[in-house]
Amino acid sequence: MTDDTRAAEELAERVRDGTLRFHELEEHADADTATAARRLLVEERSGASLDVVGDYGFPADAAAGSNIENMVGAVQVPMGVAGPVAIRGASLDGERHLPLATTEGALLASVNRGCSVLNDAGGANARVLKSGMTRAPVFRVADVVEAEALVEWVRENEGKLREAAEETTSHGELEGVTPYVVGNSVYLRFRYDTKDAMGMNMATIATRAACDVVEEATDASLVALSGNLCSDKKPAAINAVEGRGRSVTADVTIPREVVEERLHTTPEAVAELNTRKNLVGSAKAASLGFNAHVANVVAAMFLATGQDAAQVVEGSNAITTAEVRDEGLYVSVSIASLEVGTVGGGTKLPTQAEGLDVLGVRGGGDPAGSNADALAEAIAVGSLAGELSLLSALASRHLSSAHAELGR
Amino acid sequence: MTDDTRAAEELAERVRDGTLRFHELEEHADADTATAARRLLVEERSGASLDVVGDYGFPADAAAGSNIENMVGAVQVPMGVAGPVAIRGASLDGERHLPLATTEGALLASVNRGCSVLNDAGGANARVLKSGMTRAPVFRVADVVEAEALVEWVRENEGKLREAAEETTSHGELEGVTPYVVGNSVYLRFRYDTKDAMGMNMATIATRAACDVVEEATDASLVALSGNLCSDKKPAAINAVEGRGRSVTADVTIPREVVEERLHTTPEAVAELNTRKNLVGSAKAASLGFNAHVANVVAAMFLATGQDAAQVVEGSNAITTAEVRDEGLYVSVSIASLEVGTVGGGTKLPTQAEGLDVLGVRGGGDPAGSNADALAEAIAVGSLAGELSLLSALASRHLSSAHAELGR
Amino acid sequence: MTDDTRAAEELAERVRDGTLRFHELEEHADADTATAARRLLVEERSGASLDVVGDYGFPADAAAGSNIENMVGAVQVPMGVAGPVAIRGASLDGERHLPLATTEGALLASVNRGCSVLNDAGGANARVLKSGMTRAPVFRVADVVEAEALVEWVRENEGKLREAAEETTSHGELEGVTPYVVGNSVYLRFRYDTKDAMGMNMATIATRAACDVVEEATDASLVALSGNLCSDKKPAAINAVEGRGRSVTADVTIPREVVEERLHTTPEAVAELNTRKNLVGSAKAASLGFNAHVANVVAAMFLATGQDAAQVVEGSNAITTAEVRDEGLYVSVSIASLEVGTVGGGTKLPTQAEGLDVLGVRGGGDPAGSNADALAEAIAVGSLAGELSLLSALASRHLSSAHAELGR
Amino acid sequence: MTDDTRAAEELAERVRDGTLRFHELEEHADADTATAARRLLVEERSGASLDVVGDYGFPADAAAGSNIENMVGAVQVPMGVAGPVAIRGASLDGERHLPLATTEGALLASVNRGCSVLNDAGGANARVLKSGMTRAPVFRVADVVEAEALVEWVRENEGKLREAAEETTSHGELEGVTPYVVGNSVYLRFRYDTKDAMGMNMATIATRAACDVVEEATDASLVALSGNLCSDKKPAAINAVEGRGRSVTADVTIPREVVEERLHTTPEAVAELNTRKNLVGSAKAASLGFNAHVANVVAAMFLATGQDAAQVVEGSNAITTAEVRDEGLYVSVSIASLEVGTVGGGTKLPTQAEGLDVLGVRGGGDPAGSNADALAEAIAVGSLAGELSLLSALASRHLSSAHAELGR
Repeated sequence: MTDDTRAAEELAERVRDGTLRFHELEEHADADTATAARRLLVEERSGASLDVVGDYGFPADAAAGSNIENMVGAVQVPMGVAGPVAIRGASLDGERHLPLATTEGALLASVNRGCSVLNDAGGANARVLKSGMTRAPVFRVADVVEAEALVEWVRENEGKLREAAEETTSHGELEGVTPYVVGNSVYLRFRYDTKDAMGMNMATIATRAACDVVEEATDASLVALSGNLCSDKKPAAINAVEGRGRSVTADVTIPREVVEERLHTTPEAVAELNTRKNLVGSAKAASLGFNAHVANVVAAMFLATGQDAAQVVEGSNAITTAEVRDEGLYVSVSIASLEVGTVGGGTKLPTQAEGLDVLGVRGGGDPAGSNADALAEAIAVGSLAGELSLLSALASRHLSSAHAELGR
Repeated sequence: MTDDTRAAEELAERVRDGTLRFHELEEHADADTATAARRLLVEERSGASLDVVGDYGFPADAAAGSNIENMVGAVQVPMGVAGPVAIRGASLDGERHLPLATTEGALLASVNRGCSVLNDAGGANARVLKSGMTRAPVFRVADVVEAEALVEWVRENEGKLREAAEETTSHGELEGVTPYVVGNSVYLRFRYDTKDAMGMNMATIATRAACDVVEEATDASLVALSGNLCSDKKPAAINAVEGRGRSVTADVTIPREVVEERLHTTPEAVAELNTRKNLVGSAKAASLGFNAHVANVVAAMFLATGQDAAQVVEGSNAITTAEVRDEGLYVSVSIASLEVGTVGGGTKLPTQAEGLDVLGVRGGGDPAGSNADALAEAIAVGSLAGELSLLSALASRHLSSAHAELGR
Repeated sequence: MTDDTRAAEELAERVRDGTLRFHELEEHADADTATAARRLLVEERSGASLDVVGDYGFPADAAAGSNIENMVGAVQVPMGVAGPVAIRGASLDGERHLPLATTEGALLASVNRGCSVLNDAGGANARVLKSGMTRAPVFRVADVVEAEALVEWVRENEGKLREAAEETTSHGELEGVTPYVVGNSVYLRFRYDTKDAMGMNMATIATRAACDVVEEATDASLVALSGNLCSDKKPAAINAVEGRGRSVTADVTIPREVVEERLHTTPEAVAELNTRKNLVGSAKAASLGFNAHVANVVAAMFLATGQDAAQVVEGSNAITTAEVRDEGLYVSVSIASLEVGTVGGGTKLPTQAEGLDVLGVRGGGDPAGSNADALAEAIAVGSLAGELSLLSALASRHLSSAHAELGR
Repeated sequence: MTDDTRAAEELAERVRDGTLRFHELEEHADADTATAARRLLVEERSGASLDVVGDYGFPADAAAGSNIENMVGAVQVPMGVAGPVAIRGASLDGERHLPLATTEGALLASVNRGCSVLNDAGGANARVLKSGMTRAPVFRVADVVEAEALVEWVRENEGKLREAAEETTSHGELEGVTPYVVGNSVYLRFRYDTKDAMGMNMATIATRAACDVVEEATDASLVALSGNLCSDKKPAAINAVEGRGRSVTADVTIPREVVEERLHTTPEAVAELNTRKNLVGSAKAASLGFNAHVANVVAAMFLATGQDAAQVVEGSNAITTAEVRDEGLYVSVSIASLEVGTVGGGTKLPTQAEGLDVLGVRGGGDPAGSNADALAEAIAVGSLAGELSLLSALASRHLSSAHAELGR
């Protein structure tokens, strides 16, 4: 028994005898020891071994308290790279390997094939066309007469709200407040430029300050700092229509011979398939996602770069189009609400920071916001590669054989 | 330079000089060496260090080829546990720690608080009310007359389709085929019982076999093995309404005094907040997610147990209800389309397998399917804990202060 | 002053002096006199003249009490006919004039042009691919454990529910009951074959009887006979996906030269426009209606044939597709939830009955249900004509000039 | 045979012998004769009698050409009045009878009961909180790089667009242009203040002029003057979220004793029912309509006042809320996209004009727009009455018996 093991065992014993609480261990030992003690207790109760979970490659205090509580270790998700792929974005212009972390066999190979085809077409365009992080508190008023008064007050006092909001942040800027009324509930959708931060936390704190101003100046009562018109981590049309985080599009025109030789299909077949599957099929499914598997790429690149995995939900609000042109096949992917950041949150963790470094977008950009824009452009291009590859595979009918060979 | 390093360097050199291709390294060296060589090449090009990514805790050949291609290492996501919480499910009945992997500070503490309150209420009910994995190919026919004929043929020949589909799998069972027609596109939504597997791959392979039968017997042409009425990894009403994977509900009634003393709010305040935020707010946002942050818990438990992170999308199709009762506060969470498995995919990886062991649901259940049901019940209860905690925090107004203290 | 006028005046006087109530006049006079008296009172209060409203062409007692209460007369909506158009349906096979009532200038001319083009293409196919009127009561149970028990009870006792439901109707047949659970609310979606009746009323009465059985046999309490999963007169994905009333498709392939000479555009231009507008545009709008103006035709034919104008809502759940073929242009319209009847409701009124006669579908069909099917096919073909015409007009850019010339 | 009959017969004969075309008759005879001739021809072909359709109460030339083409007469829809009800709106403040035209038995009685209860509560509030008619053309550009340039151009040149648009109209004002990008399709949503006109036609003509400016100044090509982000006559989230036409709310607080004595239920029962049906039920149905039957009232008042019946679709984007208060029951109805006008379209027809007169809102208001606002307020209050009445009826369980007594 090493000293470390002994310290962990002693700490665990104090939980067992009731003198310490399970979630307070970091107050009584260093984070690695606390984590080890917690593993002992969980193993004891569950009969599980947590050996590999305990074999994490970063100091526990880098995560405990800022990224996680009740830490027992880390999950390891295999990471690979696709590309390099030529990205012709406004903030990211050059060739990059795309880091993806996933457990779905065949995904990386598929994106990789897509990247190779994008390169054969001279690379892919990418542009962030809109951006802004939102938070929408809900207020209770007496009735619609008071609701109308509140809406008017907000329109006339946006300056005061901005002042209060921006006092809480050194970077963020309030870009606008849009009111929505349902009966005696008034929702104010605040939209911020949060630069290189994903910004959910910044937006929440700033909005809270603005809400105080509203409550002081009007008869409205704050019911919840988030009233679901934000809308965070839910599949909502408001995000698909108006955007949240970055609205980003990537597109490419692929010469016909590349489609035929590299993808073993034709522009016509891909365009038809895209219409019947991604447009008409999604229409009949009453979907907000008119794409094949954009969420796969978003999820894998989110994991590899320290983004919030739950925001894959909004990242799936994407529309893929395909059309036949004289030159060949035009394909585009437009993601309406991609919430990304290159500072804060999970981006500081060692493996995730390395993932950002592969793209060259870690930390604050110059100008501010350009690194997060670049990350959005990279994810859009990765999604385009994934769409292109899967649509082509379906068109040439080897989806499940690809899985059978590469997968599970 | 160690032997391992030298081998990786030599392999990298062969890529540089063009004699080997980046994605073929596993054919010329063991997986760990291939992975190391790839890191060298990526580091070279990007200027990034991949030291921590390269410090993964499992043999590369456990993942390379089955879970990932072009592997360079692993991303490490901090993992913690909430609970133990008393789960009163049909397949999982007992106290369990819930494993969650996340980088969002405060999330685990929030779920943990919710679990504690659930325990004070005697635990939470959980039930899987519907299950079935779907795959929906799209066929092209000449016109609606032929579409009608195809629909009739399918209704009369479901037995043949079942036979063909089930020949491809030792476990899966075809439960039904539902046709949808849009013009000359016919979508057939196949639904399978895939037991303890999430089942997407099984469903795809089985459906391919059934499609062959359709094409042989009718004039229909398969356009795509997936026509987006499945609907996989997209936010789609068809899943929210009809379900996909498991449809699971967890609920609890919490005594008034527990709400007041532990959550510092009242049943009335939580019920009002739930109505204005989760119901009316989501309605106004035209959302498919009538909840506060179910996706957070789904994402964190998916990562900790080897589920597909992209399917967090469907996991966010959840409705939270809250009502005042004589006894106190009733809260429920109903997730319509939770796609989970305890065999295959990412569940075989070491840290993820340990995560499943914490819940006691690794591998095939007895009866078949019961482990995946149990996992669904655990996630539903975790989501209930998360909802309860966040709604209460909002009701007592310390959402952003919680973030400020615990978070970023 | 005529006798009629005097009688009306006397009746009105009794309302003024408080001895009669405004809504009870039919109990004290014939319906025409009651109606006239009510006009006097409304004119008095509002200063409006109701002369033309009072000049209705049917005996008031044909409507008062069965179609309207507090009758004051009738609104007159201009009616025209488009066609005749060749309909190649399963229940309606032949040439028909289509009756449309509307106040929107240019609509009828547009549909008429479309009909003419359909004829040049040899007529349009039409098929009802699914049918069934639904009603979905909501029950309260204690918790999800009881919800599960109720769902099981329903699955095992569908026979009892059918028996109770069908006792209330001489025509209707219960085709199935689908349960949906959200927390402690259980929705049972009853689906009926209501033959030639639109069937909402029949379904409501039958479901009420079935609900009594549920309440007697289980612990569930009926909260509302309609729980909005029906879903009647609301824009709901459940109808767009699963259908309600008739799911009907019409399609046609138009020779290229007809497109060019009659519609002054090309198959390619129409297909592109349909993709960018009806598919991608509606996708971005987060719509359930992937069409140009199907609701226009549905509304006008509903009015002309005595259907329920509020059900135009569901009639707009339609998808229009267009594709280029060797032969020319293929266009289809698929309406998911078209709720029509040829008996009951407004179909008995004189002008509406005449509208049905123009199509030859008044009253009960042989076999039962075939007249309502035929009406659905006619509306689908009318919608196809309208789509074709508007898409072509847009493609050749004279939408607003058409309005400017023909319209307001 | 009268002279009129003989003239019609002669005209019909010229169609039969091919010297005149069916849709050109108004060029060769007065509108009434043309209409009569057309009836003869339709009767001949269909075997139907069109006697009552032919017995319309307005000069044919009031409608032919501006409201209808190929006119054969008119459909008569029974009209009644509910109320009078006390409306406390911003543009309409006073007691009004509400005109409703419908064929659904029991509807008018239900609304009437609701009005009576609103009066007992002192009347209902109503406010228009947002307004603007939209038209959204779609342009094709080369790729996303060009899309970005177009979006920027629009932002910088809104003044030019306004100038061009407003040149086409004496009343309308362009309030803003919002761009949406999907791949190489750019949608520009123009929003207008159209005063007392519903404004669809005005918006279309003005937008066409603005599109000319865009095409001249940029590389973009107009594909369609409407790209479905408007979104007209389709059930679309963009309207439910952002509004179209008028966004209007009506609400009321009803004393508990009125609820109990007049509605035979309790505030608690209505609030619970509203939650389970209108909120949770609609959520589970993936609906844009969180109400009971708002479309019924919208349709009936639209018909009675000459509105466009197809726009009932957008009128159903409504949310109903109900909550228990100390004073009793608070109920609200918020209709997001109510498209109404008091000039133009069907409002000029005699019976419809009389319907508007009953409300006192015919023609242009002072200030401009106030009559259409007043109409919106009246419809919102009518909808509130309808919701209140139906919810109460359901709560006291006599929905289908009401239908059985009053209905079909």
